[in-house]
Amino acid sequence: MNQLPKPAGLFGAGELLQLFRDFQPHTKAELSEWTGLSRSTITQRLESLIQLGLIHPASSAASTGGRPSAQLELDPFQRLIAAVDFGATHVSVAVCTLDVRILAASERELSITEGPEVALAVMAEEVRSLLHSIGHTAEDVGAVGIGLPGPVEYSTGKPAKPPIMPGWDAFDVPERVKRDFAHVAVLVDNDVNLMALGERHVAFPDVENMIFLKVATGIGSGIIAGGELQRGAQGTAGDIGHVQLTGGGDIQCRCGYTGCLEAVASVPAVLSEINGGGPALTNVAGIIEAVDSGHVQAIQAVRQAGRDVGEVLTTCVSLINPSVIVIGGSLSRAGEHLLAGVREVVYSRSMPLASQQLTIEQSIVGREAGVIGAGVLGANYLLSPDVIDKLVTSAVRQAVG
Amino acid sequence: MNQLPKPAGLFGAGELLQLFRDFQPHTKAELSEWTGLSRSTITQRLESLIQLGLIHPASSAASTGGRPSAQLELDPFQRLIAAVDFGATHVSVAVCTLDVRILAASERELSITEGPEVALAVMAEEVRSLLHSIGHTAEDVGAVGIGLPGPVEYSTGKPAKPPIMPGWDAFDVPERVKRDFAHVAVLVDNDVNLMALGERHVAFPDVENMIFLKVATGIGSGIIAGGELQRGAQGTAGDIGHVQLTGGGDIQCRCGYTGCLEAVASVPAVLSEINGGGPALTNVAGIIEAVDSGHVQAIQAVRQAGRDVGEVLTTCVSLINPSVIVIGGSLSRAGEHLLAGVREVVYSRSMPLASQQLTIEQSIVGREAGVIGAGVLGANYLLSPDVIDKLVTSAVRQAVG
Repeated sequence: MNQLPKPAGLFGAGELLQLFRDFQPHTKAELSEWTGLSRSTITQRLESLIQLGLIHPASSAASTGGRPSAQLELDPFQRLIAAVDFGATHVSVAVCTLDVRILAASERELSITEGPEVALAVMAEEVRSLLHSIGHTAEDVGAVGIGLPGPVEYSTGKPAKPPIMPGWDAFDVPERVKRDFAHVAVLVDNDVNLMALGERHVAFPDVENMIFLKVATGIGSGIIAGGELQRGAQGTAGDIGHVQLTGGGDIQCRCGYTGCLEAVASVPAVLSEINGGGPALTNVAGIIEAVDSGHVQAIQAVRQAGRDVGEVLTTCVSLINPSVIVIGGSLSRAGEHLLAGVREVVYSRSMPLASQQLTIEQSIVGREAGVIGAGVLGANYLLSPDVIDKLVTSAVRQAVG
Repeated sequence: MNQLPKPAGLFGAGELLQLFRDFQPHTKAELSEWTGLSRSTITQRLESLIQLGLIHPASSAASTGGRPSAQLELDPFQRLIAAVDFGATHVSVAVCTLDVRILAASERELSITEGPEVALAVMAEEVRSLLHSIGHTAEDVGAVGIGLPGPVEYSTGKPAKPPIMPGWDAFDVPERVKRDFAHVAVLVDNDVNLMALGERHVAFPDVENMIFLKVATGIGSGIIAGGELQRGAQGTAGDIGHVQLTGGGDIQCRCGYTGCLEAVASVPAVLSEINGGGPALTNVAGIIEAVDSGHVQAIQAVRQAGRDVGEVLTTCVSLINPSVIVIGGSLSRAGEHLLAGVREVVYSRSMPLASQQLTIEQSIVGREAGVIGAGVLGANYLLSPDVIDKLVTSAVRQAVG
C-alpha cells in the first residue's frame, strides 16, 4: 500500500545540520524560529550532532556578540576529504575540509593509460603522504572524491567505455580505493563535471544555470541546470566533444565519426592547424607561447577553435539558457583569443533573450577547479541529510548495544 | 549574521503533506515511522491539515484493511485547478483536481494575435462555464495554470518578446487573470514546457531525464533533467527551433537568421517542400492525409523533417543524456515517417553510451499534453510545502485573531 520510499530523516538531525552549512554560528533560538520545531526537539537533535563531533560551540562566539554558550557551528575539520583529479597525464591530489578548504595538495605526472591498479595505488600513496604532512591519518578521512577523464556511471563509480583510459572500462574504482582506505565513501565522476562544481563553488556560488567547457586534449562540458549538476541517464550529459559542426567537413575524429568539435578545436587539432606541413609546436605550452609572442597563424588557429566551440555553445545556450559559460582546460590559457572566437559566434547567433544577460568568461579557478570540485563532491556527500541520519542512527545503536 | 534565508516550514505541515501526494491512505503510525517525528507531533501537524480540509479520513479505508479511523488521505477535490493551453489558433481549457484528473474540458478556436485582453477574457468565460457545468464556482479554484506559445519569464508570468504573440510582450498575465479570479495563484509557462510536464505525468512518471519536442507551426522543446523541468536563466531553455542545421543552407527563418531548424522542419516548411511550385496542401491535416494515402513527396518531406529534427536532437542527446525523447506537436501525427527520420539520425550519430538505452517515441498523450501539464503546474504549486505552510500559518492567525 505504501507507494513512497521511506523519506529517511525528513525531519531529523540530517536536515537540521543543513542549516549549519553556511559554516556560521547559530543559536538554538534561531534554529527553532527557522524550523518551527520546539526548543526541546532542537536540543535533542543537536545533541546527536554534538556527540558525533559535527557541531560544537562556536570558537568565534565571543567576537560575534552572542553568549558564547549559545552559539553553535559546524566543525569543518570533523571529517577530511581526499580530493583527486586524474587527467590524461597527471594526477592532482588534495586534502580538504568539509568547507572545501585545501589543507595540502600535490600534483604528479602519471599517464592514465597505466591503468587503474597503478593509478589508484599512486593516488593512495599521495593521499597518505599529504595526510602525514599535516599531521593527520587515513582515519580522519570520510570521503574520497575522484575525477576521471572519461564517462563515469556515477551511481556505481565505474568508468563507462572511456576512450583514452585503457583498462578502466567498468573497473570498480570504489572497491579498489576501499582496499586502501576502508570505511571511506568513494565518489567518482567525470573530470569536467567536477570542474563545473569547483568553478561554481569558488566563483559562482549563486549561479543556478551554468556551463563549464573544458578545451584541452579532449573537449567536454559540465552542466549545472536548476542549481544541480546534471549527469543524465547514463552519466554522459555534457559530452559535447563529438557534436558535429556545420563546417566540420570530413576531418576524422578519434570517435570514428568526422567533423566533431573535438576533431577541429582540441589542442591536437589546433597544433596540426598551426603546424601545417611540419611539426613545429608539440604541446599546449607551445601554442600559448606562440600566441603570446604574436605568431599570426597560432592566433588565427586559436581564434578559429573559439569560433568552432562557439557554434556548439550556441546550441547549448538555446537548450540550457545558462547565465554563465566558463571556458576552462589547457587551451583556455591561450587567453583572450579563444574567448574572443567563442563570444563572436555565441553573441552573433543566439536569440537575444537568451544571450543578453549571458556572461562568457575564462575559468577563474584554473587548474585547481577539478580537485576543488572533487572536494565539493565529497563534502556534499558527507553532509547530506541521509548520511548524517545514518551516522546518528548507528551512534544510537552503539549506545544502546 | 544569518546567511541563510528562513527555510520556511522545513519540518512543518507542508513537508508532512508531501507524504500524501501519492493520494494513498496512510496511518499516523506510518507517518511517524517515516519521519521519526513523535505521534503527538504528527497529530498536531495533521490537525492543521485536517482543519484546512486537505486531509480527511480515507474513504476507501474499509477496503484497504486498516481501521477506518486510522487511515487518512489527501482530498484531491479540496482545491480545483483551471488548466489552460493557448496555441497559435486555439485555447484548450480544463478544470481538474489536485491529482490532475480532468473533470471538464473544452477547446475553442482563438487566434493568439487577438492579444491578451481578448484571449484572457475568453479563457475566463470558458473556465466559468466549465465550472458551472460540474456544479462548482470560481471560489473552488485555487490555481490557474496557463501555457503560452512563446517564451515566458516564469517568475513573473510575463511573456518575453514572443515572436507570434503581438501585444503580449511583458504583459502582466497574472495581474489580468486575478481581475477575473481574485485570490487564485496564476502560473504561466511556455506551452512546450507544460507539454513536457503533461507527457511525463501521464506516460513517464519515473523518468528523470527527458526531452519533449513539439513540431508544429513552430518547433520547441521542454527539458526535464535531474527530475526537474529546466527553464534556464531567462526561461528560454529548450528553445531549439532556431538552432542552425549543418545542411540548413540559406533558407530564411522568421527569426532573421537562415538555416534554422524551424525554417526547414516546421509545418510551413514541410508544406512548402511538398507543394514545390503550387500551394496544393494548406495545413497539417493535408500533410497527414497525403502521407496516409501514400503521397511519395509528402512522405519524403516528412521523413526529411524528421532527419533535420534528429540532427538537433543528436546534440541534445550529447548535452542532456535523456532516457526518453518524445515527439509531439501537430506534425507528429504524421506518424512513423517523422519518427523514422528522427531515429535514423539520432541512433546513427550519437555516442553509443548515450543512445543504447534511449527511447524515442511519439507523444502518447497527444493534444491534451499541454492542458494536463498546466494542471500539473497548478497542483505542484498548490501542494508545495511553502504554500501549505502559509495556509497553516494564516489559519492559525485567524483562529487567534
